[in-house]
Amino acid sequence: MLELNFSNMMGEVIGQKGIAERQIEGIKTTVSNIDKRIKSKERPELAFIDLLEQDTSEIKKTASFIRDNFENFIILGIGGSALGPRAITEALSPFHNLDKKPRVFIYDNVDPGTLDRMLSLTDLKKTAVNVITKSGSTAETMSSFMVLWDRMNKAGSDALKSFIATTDPEKGNLRKIANEKGLKALSIPSGVGGRYSVLSPVGLLLAEVIGVSADEMLQGARDIHQRCSDAEVWKNPAYLFGVLLYIMEREEKRTMNVMVPYADGLKPLAEWFCQLWAESLGKLGTGLTPYPSLGTTDQHSQLQLWMEGPEDKVVIFIKVDDYGVDIKIPKVFQDMDGLNYLGGHTMSELIKAEQESTELALAKIKRPNMAIGIPKIDAYHMGQLFHFFEMATAFTGFLYGINPFNQPGVEEGKNFTYGMMGKKGFEAKKEEVEKAREKKMCWRV
Amino acid sequence: MLELNFSNMMGEVIGQKGIAERQIEGIKTTVSNIDKRIKSKERPELAFIDLLEQDTSEIKKTASFIRDNFENFIILGIGGSALGPRAITEALSPFHNLDKKPRVFIYDNVDPGTLDRMLSLTDLKKTAVNVITKSGSTAETMSSFMVLWDRMNKAGSDALKSFIATTDPEKGNLRKIANEKGLKALSIPSGVGGRYSVLSPVGLLLAEVIGVSADEMLQGARDIHQRCSDAEVWKNPAYLFGVLLYIMEREEKRTMNVMVPYADGLKPLAEWFCQLWAESLGKLGTGLTPYPSLGTTDQHSQLQLWMEGPEDKVVIFIKVDDYGVDIKIPKVFQDMDGLNYLGGHTMSELIKAEQESTELALAKIKRPNMAIGIPKIDAYHMGQLFHFFEMATAFTGFLYGINPFNQPGVEEGKNFTYGMMGKKGFEAKKEEVEKAREKKMCWRV
Repeated sequence: MLELNFSNMMGEVIGQKGIAERQIEGIKTTVSNIDKRIKSKERPELAFIDLLEQDTSEIKKTASFIRDNFENFIILGIGGSALGPRAITEALSPFHNLDKKPRVFIYDNVDPGTLDRMLSLTDLKKTAVNVITKSGSTAETMSSFMVLWDRMNKAGSDALKSFIATTDPEKGNLRKIANEKGLKALSIPSGVGGRYSVLSPVGLLLAEVIGVSADEMLQGARDIHQRCSDAEVWKNPAYLFGVLLYIMEREEKRTMNVMVPYADGLKPLAEWFCQLWAESLGKLGTGLTPYPSLGTTDQHSQLQLWMEGPEDKVVIFIKVDDYGVDIKIPKVFQDMDGLNYLGGHTMSELIKAEQESTELALAKIKRPNMAIGIPKIDAYHMGQLFHFFEMATAFTGFLYGINPFNQPGVEEGKNFTYGMMGKKGFEAKKEEVEKAREKKMCWRV
Repeated sequence: MLELNFSNMMGEVIGQKGIAERQIEGIKTTVSNIDKRIKSKERPELAFIDLLEQDTSEIKKTASFIRDNFENFIILGIGGSALGPRAITEALSPFHNLDKKPRVFIYDNVDPGTLDRMLSLTDLKKTAVNVITKSGSTAETMSSFMVLWDRMNKAGSDALKSFIATTDPEKGNLRKIANEKGLKALSIPSGVGGRYSVLSPVGLLLAEVIGVSADEMLQGARDIHQRCSDAEVWKNPAYLFGVLLYIMEREEKRTMNVMVPYADGLKPLAEWFCQLWAESLGKLGTGLTPYPSLGTTDQHSQLQLWMEGPEDKVVIFIKVDDYGVDIKIPKVFQDMDGLNYLGGHTMSELIKAEQESTELALAKIKRPNMAIGIPKIDAYHMGQLFHFFEMATAFTGFLYGINPFNQPGVEEGKNFTYGMMGKKGFEAKKEEVEKAREKKMCWRV
């Protein structure tokens, strides 16, 4: 079971800059009020909680068809539609494409170089494509879909077998296309937003395609949900996670939350978390900036800044008890002072010692940090991590008094793009771009 | 040639929150004094500039031997020793391992799961290993080296052919081992620190192994160095880059610098930059936090926070003129309103429109941003980017009055690890760890 150790956040351990028990006590009523709002599903977007009870038979059937019939599985999606699938793949099937079939390509951009290279690597007749967009109108995803649709038809693929549309159950262009053309379609339930969708078909189909059990993932999520349903802040890891970071931001101006898993495979999970946290909480002039990192690797990159830079960060470790395998460091070069101490230990001893050392070094100079521990990296615990962070994020949004489910700040950029690309109704935006270009002073070197 | 467009940093474009010309004027004398210190090579670590004139024949010979004799090329290194090689590989040979030989594995951690998986994928008899550590004592790198040394000897590899030591010309355990065993060795010149070493054999050997010209890379670096040698701040893009971010931090409390290339292949370059910037500048309680990002992808992840979150960021775009290839978005689904506007455009039109839109949307609400433009992604311009950022970082360190070449803050964590792993002379640290464990209050849920 996932566990949160927050000793190094507390005044009793790190002194003045830490949190006092009474600060958490002082927020208890607010927390239990938010708990009621969450339990009453005050907002329709809290439907992500209902995902834990979904029937996965359709997903499993589709995945099994893909496994049996294709050598490549391409996901077209961006933001939450790509980050969740990537987090699952890298955590549970590292170096997947080097010796596993179907190979997985997650294309989440509109970089023509990448798309061209990806197409050159895949025999389109042996390729299934999952197009993921909740709204059905995401420009990046739909333009790649248009390219793939055209090329696969020309290559003689059977669209009815090769394409899956993962989108809103009723609304949007992608649903409309799926209906008209008779494509296989999976639904993202209408309340569920992109960044809370990893435990919907968005992540679960990919999981099953690469041989990861969707049901185990959901079981993990259900089990952690139990613990994240306690109205009492001290007993609820998700609420406590939010409360601690909230206090650190309000009282100590620590606006950055560094997420540092000590396992290569969890780096994309950190990136998935960063999207969830940033897009949910960054609004109305407030917001915490999540920072994706990786231990031990970033001890040689970011640690200097965490230790001696501005006091604006909280570091959050993700610790793994059992790496599944271990590797002994052999007793070679034993005549070398300053090297021979390593021989006889194992890699997992070393990575764990480094994690604990970093934690201690930060705590020693009173820099707050906390640790999320999981027993091992498997489908069950990935489900726990995903759902834990989603609960924590929704809760923290309510704590800040903001809507953790919208993203109004990205609209203006989209509108300018629509203008430049000639979308009907955005002629004024096009003019605005042209005026800005003219007016824009040219400061360049 | 690399170009810096900083219009959206200036008051004339973004109003009050922008920079006034006189603020840059006011810093001119300081800048030209720093320029003198750089040119006089005041610090030995400025030797990274001398790399531009190095002889690459030994590197090319070694690379050609590796290309001709091996199917896998493993780099063991961490921090600067890994990030530079990764930035080169992903920018100039995307999806390299899917159809190119030798395959490249950059192992920069001590995660036993990853190492085990990597070993299962590689025939060690057909594998060359480049061990990169300037000091020759990096625990992560040396412990993986010990594992590989043992396994490759047992597998019957010829160590003299298969191992390359890339390290200090004279000092350290790795150099000693290379001398004793007669291993092939390449030198990182003694003044050059790990994070300023990409244009040494650290990055250049990898480049040549994957078919990228080291000489072209150095030519690019030399050409941009010319421009970054002007004592006049207005004419020097590297100095101006530092000055603008310095003013934004001092005057506007913008402590975060988001680096957003609009090209998949440049994401690892952003990560390489982040290590350079964070570890060089984060000290004495000051420092700017660099944030690695990717366009258009992170418009669906971070953009909301940049637009509506706290005003603590400067966004830095990297723009590419020519993506090398382009892909037409076909005129399919033309009966779909809200989708048909895409057909007929190209992918590069779309990615460029999105970049400009994001820039404009930020500027419209007075959020500062600037853009580094390069004509295309090739060896020549990668060399320019690397050297430009190194010059800018060294300069900015001097501007803050700190030493941009050390990393004292990471020592304490290392010492705790030495203690736990039983290194001689660190017994007191081991005791400190044990005491901390006992004393540590157990706050967990």
